[in-house]
Amino acid sequence: MARFEKHVLICENHRDPSDKRGCCAAKGSAQILDKFKGRMKELGLTYKMRANKSGCLDACEHGAVVLVYPEQVWYGNVKAEDVEEIIQSHLINNKPVERLKIKKKKFL
Amino acid sequence: MARFEKHVLICENHRDPSDKRGCCAAKGSAQILDKFKGRMKELGLTYKMRANKSGCLDACEHGAVVLVYPEQVWYGNVKAEDVEEIIQSHLINNKPVERLKIKKKKFL
Repeated sequence: MARFEKHVLICENHRDPSDKRGCCAAKGSAQILDKFKGRMKELGLTYKMRANKSGCLDACEHGAVVLVYPEQVWYGNVKAEDVEEIIQSHLINNKPVERLKIKKKKFL
Repeated sequence: MARFEKHVLICENHRDPSDKRGCCAAKGSAQILDKFKGRMKELGLTYKMRANKSGCLDACEHGAVVLVYPEQVWYGNVKAEDVEEIIQSHLINNKPVERLKIKKKKFL
């Protein structure tokens, strides 16, 4: 059995505000990471799941970006208030949150 | 098709040298990350694969740690000189490098 049943990566890349690409750090990724870590601990999930910050996931226009393995589900425009739904639906009940998925073909 | 055929995470967590747990940053993770990124670019792999730094993967005693998705293969005690083998064998030819795998059951 794999060590982590679910592994959540939250892009925390930071760019200068003058950079047109934007970045996930400017779109609340630190709060999203904190909320994942806090709630997963409260819910007793951390023995089999983990949330980590990551370097740039190259999906800047969709930030803040959250990526869930092993399924490689890509979520875009994620806000801190979406975290509970991702945890309850996807991590616990194995049902990815369709409304938050990035819709572009290459991300499906 | 998933966006990334292979996704390599390199733990870059840093702890104070007085911390007995050690950390991957003190075991060369920055050089490992650089080498993955550089070689994957040179080899034309970056359109379908990616290497990223990550926060602490909670395998500190095995550092430097490299984790490859979607298979969730855990490599431990990785050195910069091991990167080419991981790329050629695992990323390109889909054969994980057995000698570098962390052997503990929970990582298999």
